[in-house]
Amino acid sequence: MQEKGTISIHSENIFPIIKKFLYSDHEVFLRELVSNAVDATQKIKSLSALGEYTGELGDTSIEIKINKKKKTLHVIDRGIGMTGEEIKKYINQIAFSGATEFVEKYKEKGEGAGIIGHFGLGFYSAFMVAEKVEIKSLSREEGAKPAHWVCDGSTEFELTEGDKKERGSEVILHINEDSKEFLEEHRVREVLNKYCKFLPVPIIFGEKEETIKEGEGEDAKEKKITKPVVINNPEPLWTKSPADLKDEDYINFYKELYPFSEEPLFWIHLNVDFPFNLTGILYFPKIKNELEMSKNKIQLYSRQVFITDEVKDVVPEFLMLLHGVIDSPDIPLNVSRSYLQADSNVKKINSHITKKVADKLSDLFKKERKSFEEKWESIGLFIKYGMMSDDKFYDKAKSFCLLKSINQDKYFTLDEYTEHVKTNQTDKDGNVNFIYATDPAKQDAFITSAEKKAYDVILLNSPIDSHFINMLEQKLEKTSMKRVDADIVDKLIDKDEKAESVLSDEEKEKLKKVFEEAVNNKSMTIAVEALSPDELPVTITLPEFMRRMKDMAQTGGGGMSFMGTMPDQFNLTINGNHKLAGKILKETDTEKQKALAKQGYDLALLSQNMLNGKDLTSFISRSVQMMD
Amino acid sequence: MQEKGTISIHSENIFPIIKKFLYSDHEVFLRELVSNAVDATQKIKSLSALGEYTGELGDTSIEIKINKKKKTLHVIDRGIGMTGEEIKKYINQIAFSGATEFVEKYKEKGEGAGIIGHFGLGFYSAFMVAEKVEIKSLSREEGAKPAHWVCDGSTEFELTEGDKKERGSEVILHINEDSKEFLEEHRVREVLNKYCKFLPVPIIFGEKEETIKEGEGEDAKEKKITKPVVINNPEPLWTKSPADLKDEDYINFYKELYPFSEEPLFWIHLNVDFPFNLTGILYFPKIKNELEMSKNKIQLYSRQVFITDEVKDVVPEFLMLLHGVIDSPDIPLNVSRSYLQADSNVKKINSHITKKVADKLSDLFKKERKSFEEKWESIGLFIKYGMMSDDKFYDKAKSFCLLKSINQDKYFTLDEYTEHVKTNQTDKDGNVNFIYATDPAKQDAFITSAEKKAYDVILLNSPIDSHFINMLEQKLEKTSMKRVDADIVDKLIDKDEKAESVLSDEEKEKLKKVFEEAVNNKSMTIAVEALSPDELPVTITLPEFMRRMKDMAQTGGGGMSFMGTMPDQFNLTINGNHKLAGKILKETDTEKQKALAKQGYDLALLSQNMLNGKDLTSFISRSVQMMD
Repeated sequence: MQEKGTISIHSENIFPIIKKFLYSDHEVFLRELVSNAVDATQKIKSLSALGEYTGELGDTSIEIKINKKKKTLHVIDRGIGMTGEEIKKYINQIAFSGATEFVEKYKEKGEGAGIIGHFGLGFYSAFMVAEKVEIKSLSREEGAKPAHWVCDGSTEFELTEGDKKERGSEVILHINEDSKEFLEEHRVREVLNKYCKFLPVPIIFGEKEETIKEGEGEDAKEKKITKPVVINNPEPLWTKSPADLKDEDYINFYKELYPFSEEPLFWIHLNVDFPFNLTGILYFPKIKNELEMSKNKIQLYSRQVFITDEVKDVVPEFLMLLHGVIDSPDIPLNVSRSYLQADSNVKKINSHITKKVADKLSDLFKKERKSFEEKWESIGLFIKYGMMSDDKFYDKAKSFCLLKSINQDKYFTLDEYTEHVKTNQTDKDGNVNFIYATDPAKQDAFITSAEKKAYDVILLNSPIDSHFINMLEQKLEKTSMKRVDADIVDKLIDKDEKAESVLSDEEKEKLKKVFEEAVNNKSMTIAVEALSPDELPVTITLPEFMRRMKDMAQTGGGGMSFMGTMPDQFNLTINGNHKLAGKILKETDTEKQKALAKQGYDLALLSQNMLNGKDLTSFISRSVQMMD
Repeated sequence: MQEKGTISIHSENIFPIIKKFLYSDHEVFLRELVSNAVDATQKIKSLSALGEYTGELGDTSIEIKINKKKKTLHVIDRGIGMTGEEIKKYINQIAFSGATEFVEKYKEKGEGAGIIGHFGLGFYSAFMVAEKVEIKSLSREEGAKPAHWVCDGSTEFELTEGDKKERGSEVILHINEDSKEFLEEHRVREVLNKYCKFLPVPIIFGEKEETIKEGEGEDAKEKKITKPVVINNPEPLWTKSPADLKDEDYINFYKELYPFSEEPLFWIHLNVDFPFNLTGILYFPKIKNELEMSKNKIQLYSRQVFITDEVKDVVPEFLMLLHGVIDSPDIPLNVSRSYLQADSNVKKINSHITKKVADKLSDLFKKERKSFEEKWESIGLFIKYGMMSDDKFYDKAKSFCLLKSINQDKYFTLDEYTEHVKTNQTDKDGNVNFIYATDPAKQDAFITSAEKKAYDVILLNSPIDSHFINMLEQKLEKTSMKRVDADIVDKLIDKDEKAESVLSDEEKEKLKKVFEEAVNNKSMTIAVEALSPDELPVTITLPEFMRRMKDMAQTGGGGMSFMGTMPDQFNLTINGNHKLAGKILKETDTEKQKALAKQGYDLALLSQNMLNGKDLTSFISRSVQMMD
């Protein structure tokens, strides 16, 4: 036993696979046939440009027709056409790509760049939906005889002389019983709209009535005519040069892609030649509600043929919420052309897009800071998400990532903000403290207290911010992040200052006991402190660390879900220097003493939005009685 | 021109496509090679069972080995083996499936059911990661000579006599430069774990050290030995008969699938023979937080080979949150075996799963109502979602869909609940009113009022409930749904009863004016009503219809986003029969009059959680002053 040989393949084995199992969706047969028609059209244009075809080009639109009676679907092009010999070469040989051959032959002459075909398999997808397929073709060659090819889905074909009078090819599908949907106008329109909307050759499907005027002045008569309907936009915006385009053009194209959507904030026109070819337009949408945002709004094209709206891998996760289109002949596709191949090119494209987006944002910030700030609410989300998920993006974004001061109603960069607060907000260990609020309406009492100390408070109120806060602390040196209600204001930034106490230690201890009895809640750690007399008499706070752990557990931080079920441990601080403290200590009736403490406690709960249910109901009815 | 002929295909054209573009992920080569090894093993077992092979079966484990130095990866089986002639037939002919041939030949004898192979293409996926592939094989035929096949990735092969001593085949991949990752143990383990975890033949990868005892009693010595590691579970639970399994088995299998997860609530063992084959286990997880839930937790297998965790289409949308496995040889797969084919079988499987789930739930409800009720918080979500999205499911689920009464702390079916409330909660038009609360802590004051009227209140507090409420109203006849704070309690159910007013019309008008000035808020429609004296003096309500429109806009109801930006229009009802009304009318100092009205208004805001920010802060400091 010793032999060499060639691995073989038989069409009767591979043919059923191509017909049935290569493409997941039957509807793609139309994408394949129209792509072939586009290629045939582009080829005749190339030959004409090179002088290799000297006849009239004429109208080169592609036409799709349905004949419901005959159960046929027709794809007609006015392209290069095929002689009988060419049909034998390109059609009768599966996986021999005429497109690839053409590109090879003409690439040095600068033609063939837009040719879609690649594998030489697409034509056979017709058999997914047709029991019989015919080709009628007339070649561009002078004196060529028309050819007529028929195949009933077995591997046998018949080739005879045909009767086609016009240059080009007509593919006729005799739709099978299971695929009758493709004899319905709305279904065909739907498929064309999905895959062929931006193909570079006009595609005609159906016709519409129009009223025109004939003659002039008083003699003018109205006349109804029917006109073919072009269903595609052969020159989509991303194929044009940015220099030739106005804002209006981008906004109109956005509306073409997403009817009924609000205008985008801004956009990035991608145009890459090296090391891969890629064009596209990415739009930043206005974001009103984080939960509303939908991914998979970016459409992926390859040579203007729609591929998929699942751009995972090509676009970094944090930019998946953008809208728009990406077109690249260099994105490696699966043989069924509906899926991406995992490939190093994909990674390169991904990081290039990240870089482009960062550059555009940086540019916008430098040149139009005011407009950038106005958009911050929407774009901040992308930027923060990007900074957390991609170190390279962080390095670029740290110069244009903004913080909004609530007190000043003003935006600062990270550096500017540190500069702004460091004098007043540095603690005894030399750490600059950034104080933030997550819900100014609910944290108003604490913000008011901070303002009295001339502390600045920033707004960090989106769900992503609980992670963003942790990241900032890790990345910024000597910086602590503290929520405005993490402690009483005197302790929020530990400057090692001590206020003088009006009460003696004995009185403090007594006051503490009164509250312990009135509050009677184990999750409250009670302490008496000497605060300013115009601070609240009682304050409830949840330490920063505790709250942050719980926040992270809730938003799904790694392995911390046990924290979510731990009871909160609050600090209840009694202001020993407030008038109420003195009043309670002077009160001799212990019931009245307790009632005063309880009311102080309830008001503290109220300012932390912790007075709810039965407790709130009874507080309200007590307050109603007190009005009497 | 008139000719008939056969469509042809040349291996040099199709070979590069199979090598590069057929499979999206390179890692699947291992799935393909191990599947082939499993088939070879199953075949020898079949032949042995039929008496066509009379030799010893021996250990039929499959072994995977890496040789980092030689840069090779080996897949070794002790299966059927191939002679040189068989290699020529099965390997040298692309797309000729030996598996299909075997199934055809033996299916009448009841063998071959588990054979994985189908297309005859998988072996060539090896060339995605290997620059050279060898096969060493020894056939089960008596006296067969070992064969050795080598191919360097061109379409040329070389076949010689080999040196293999044991029955079976060894495929040796000389890993190429770009695919070095597949020489790393952890990477190979990862891929095996993903695709091969439940293949029906033991798969050995690597070895572990074990300490054993030799000898007995005092002479016993400890000795270290190395043992091969089997990385798969060849008999996963879903392949077994439900009658042989205990709850413990299901729970353990759940833990095998999802380590670190909480125990599931219950499960459904699927076992279908007709009209398609399908086995599987679906688990209902405990749901703590709707936002935490992740889809794509169901794994799809075909003959125990992992396919994908994107079960879209196979499983109805509302069950995508379930966990578990589904295995079906009848789910049509793409030629790359990683994607589903769109197909009518998929729809059938989908509706069968829906039916099975509904039956199981109905069964559980009938046989173990208490346990069903305990699980309602988690399973209610699936059921409600299912009822809204699938009419057939609604028809089954309406008998076991539960409503929880807050007052009674008890569950009712829809019919039971109508029966329970219809006497006291039917309005003048004969509609039964279901009163619900979405947040009992916040709506406590209103729940208390409803209780005073002996109205029952149900809890509908999950985000899905805003849609569920609409559905119930549409489906249930003569039933209205009203949130407990949609109106003052006397008007919540319009029974055409009028309470007697203490105030004259003139006094009412005067009172209304005082409040209009004190409130000074256009979004409050003020009215004076005669309510019970122990109801609150002032109540704020948002009409059911208004609130519901806004809720739907927020959760993304179709085309209603404009509602989300509309200002709320509240009803402010003043209780003319409350003492406060009299007190305000008697007060002569207009400033004091206004202050009383303002305090009443603030308390009403408070009970609706509408007192926030600066208003809450000043309410609190006013209340602190009042304590003095």
